[in-house]
Amino acid sequence: MAEPIDIDKDIAATSRRRFLRQGGALVGGAVITGGLGGSQALAATANADNLPPNVPEWMKTPGDPMGSQPYGTPSPFEKDVVKNIPKNLPQYLSASGRTPLQDLDGIITPNGLFYERHHAGVPTIDPAQHRLMLHGLVDKPLIFTMDDIRRFPSESRIHFLECYGKTASDLVGLLSCAEWTGVSLKLVLQEAGLQAGAKWVVAEGADAAALTRSIPIEKCLDDAMLVYSQNGERLRPQQGYPLRLLLPGFEGNMNIKWLRRLRVAAEPTYSRDETSKYTDLMPDGSAREFTFYMEAKSIITRPSGGQRLNAPGFHEISGIAWSGHGKVRRVDVSVDDGKSWQQARLQEPVLTRALTRFRLPWHWDGQPAVIQSRLLAVRGDNYTYHNNAIWPWRIAADGEVTNANA
Amino acid sequence: MAEPIDIDKDIAATSRRRFLRQGGALVGGAVITGGLGGSQALAATANADNLPPNVPEWMKTPGDPMGSQPYGTPSPFEKDVVKNIPKNLPQYLSASGRTPLQDLDGIITPNGLFYERHHAGVPTIDPAQHRLMLHGLVDKPLIFTMDDIRRFPSESRIHFLECYGKTASDLVGLLSCAEWTGVSLKLVLQEAGLQAGAKWVVAEGADAAALTRSIPIEKCLDDAMLVYSQNGERLRPQQGYPLRLLLPGFEGNMNIKWLRRLRVAAEPTYSRDETSKYTDLMPDGSAREFTFYMEAKSIITRPSGGQRLNAPGFHEISGIAWSGHGKVRRVDVSVDDGKSWQQARLQEPVLTRALTRFRLPWHWDGQPAVIQSRLLAVRGDNYTYHNNAIWPWRIAADGEVTNANA
Repeated sequence: MAEPIDIDKDIAATSRRRFLRQGGALVGGAVITGGLGGSQALAATANADNLPPNVPEWMKTPGDPMGSQPYGTPSPFEKDVVKNIPKNLPQYLSASGRTPLQDLDGIITPNGLFYERHHAGVPTIDPAQHRLMLHGLVDKPLIFTMDDIRRFPSESRIHFLECYGKTASDLVGLLSCAEWTGVSLKLVLQEAGLQAGAKWVVAEGADAAALTRSIPIEKCLDDAMLVYSQNGERLRPQQGYPLRLLLPGFEGNMNIKWLRRLRVAAEPTYSRDETSKYTDLMPDGSAREFTFYMEAKSIITRPSGGQRLNAPGFHEISGIAWSGHGKVRRVDVSVDDGKSWQQARLQEPVLTRALTRFRLPWHWDGQPAVIQSRLLAVRGDNYTYHNNAIWPWRIAADGEVTNANA
Repeated sequence: MAEPIDIDKDIAATSRRRFLRQGGALVGGAVITGGLGGSQALAATANADNLPPNVPEWMKTPGDPMGSQPYGTPSPFEKDVVKNIPKNLPQYLSASGRTPLQDLDGIITPNGLFYERHHAGVPTIDPAQHRLMLHGLVDKPLIFTMDDIRRFPSESRIHFLECYGKTASDLVGLLSCAEWTGVSLKLVLQEAGLQAGAKWVVAEGADAAALTRSIPIEKCLDDAMLVYSQNGERLRPQQGYPLRLLLPGFEGNMNIKWLRRLRVAAEPTYSRDETSKYTDLMPDGSAREFTFYMEAKSIITRPSGGQRLNAPGFHEISGIAWSGHGKVRRVDVSVDDGKSWQQARLQEPVLTRALTRFRLPWHWDGQPAVIQSRLLAVRGDNYTYHNNAIWPWRIAADGEVTNANA
């Protein structure tokens, strides 16, 4: 093995004196010159106290040998980046594990942190025993093994999933995004042959709650999928292993996990889950039974509640936007409590019914501030501002970030 | 909890007699009608023996409670889907853990299965102690903490990484793809100020091997990134936690992990790693010292070696294509040992220097066959066929799939 390079010696040979002489002045004084349009002062620490050790401890002996982790895990220093599991919810009625959106970058949610919500725990299903039955108003009722499902032509698409629940005071978290692979539900329905009068597909899960939801046939013949893989590998048990329904843009609980049955019908089933849980009581006392597409929303994830800005100066504001109706077109950000708005940069690729990452450079002057985002998204064929789902964050003079609505 | 729906009763009420009467005839007899252009006969099992139990075991009691896995893991039924770690390689010289590409779908590699290769094990680095030094031919030598790095404007991009190694007889596997988030290296170099004569950046890792490589300044000012997140969460230790260099399209080992030092220089460093390991002996006896961009390649992952086709009939051929030079434009597939070729369908989004998934419907007649793929990719500004990296698979009459080159 080669000797690690001596950093001290190397510095001495090139620029040490200059480095130490200039170091102090650089703290907080360096200016980004790379096209950020006048944003200022990103501090790159450069004083002698922060010199790296010549050879850090972890360079002095070989690290973990190959093979200790045939399936990799995060660093022990990231042990607190886990799903947020509220302790006081009834375990089998409204349990949820939230994605720590404030700790994530990009648009893909890693499978270990994908949000989960279920009503009777997570079943452990043997894929060799699992069956999907397709029956009802079809010419040929069919039963599929997982091998049968996987023999169909496949497709992969990146889509978000979001639980239809009340917004919490901290980050939403019942929201994630993954690359899904599976089979077009339309193809499977065509295999069975739809009969006249087929207007709904009633989907049932193989968990102890037998969660059952009715899906309009139009969605089933559009972009609905029978999904078996998520971010490359097979679905996790928490996300419906070995098979789930994916209805891009529809509220999360309709994307039935552990899918075992599809019954094609003329009417919705008015299942327990539909009548007792996912019906909205409207202000006029009537009940809105079916809510399908998730509305356009956006949220700043960094900085966000629970975080702290260490110092005034340059900070990037970053967040995510999404809409069940299509692609995000534009996100605006305000750093002055809504008095003015600036257009954020959208990270490519911007995909239909996927999370979209937005970013805005910001110079924080150290004064209290309220930051928030809003978006212009496709809704059907109309472009409409949806300002109703705004999560503002308050930044205190000491850098503490809290929910400005609380 | 609601009573699980009685499938037997439900079948009886709708289509049981018809279902049982037709069942036998459906096996192997159903035809995909969904635009596959004449491909034939996907078998959907539908005879009485395979009826699902009325209520499977896992519906009879609640499943794993929420909170048992604050960081999710794959199903126990997927325990064999792990990195392929050759047992007979010297642990600290040429250790590798390969991605099981044959088991994956889509283009994203989950972090737990991302390939790894290192020369002195995986260091466990405390991100609070980690420093990146930038020095050499710059106006202001700088030392960055991880907080400093994360305060820069960020970007996320999906790119593949591939080890520059000899092709194995089975699937390559030293190849993965992820969504990376980090900082433009150009921005960080501009922060320090490049001096005249700056032609190379020498990057050093903080592992016990202190892997050191020289990068042309052109790449550093193009799309190179300092990466801290992968598929949303922080880098795994095996992929360079807390910071790595990402050089999209360049051979894997130049994407220095555990990055602690960038020295801007007029000349490459001719490091041990460059002269002893990653120099190619050419046929004429000369040495080709620097190989940067990975060439265009493609491989069929399903069906592939080690798998078995259970029956003749419809099978989808699926694989991945990639090029260090840009986007994949077209992939052709042959199912007759190279005598004829058909254009495969490319899964959107097709991204620059990312894996691209391709698919082709295929009817296997049960006879021995050799299947393979080739691609037309961007190389610089010229379109060139690269037929030199073809992995053909032989399908035996019993469905066994093996390497046709072995």
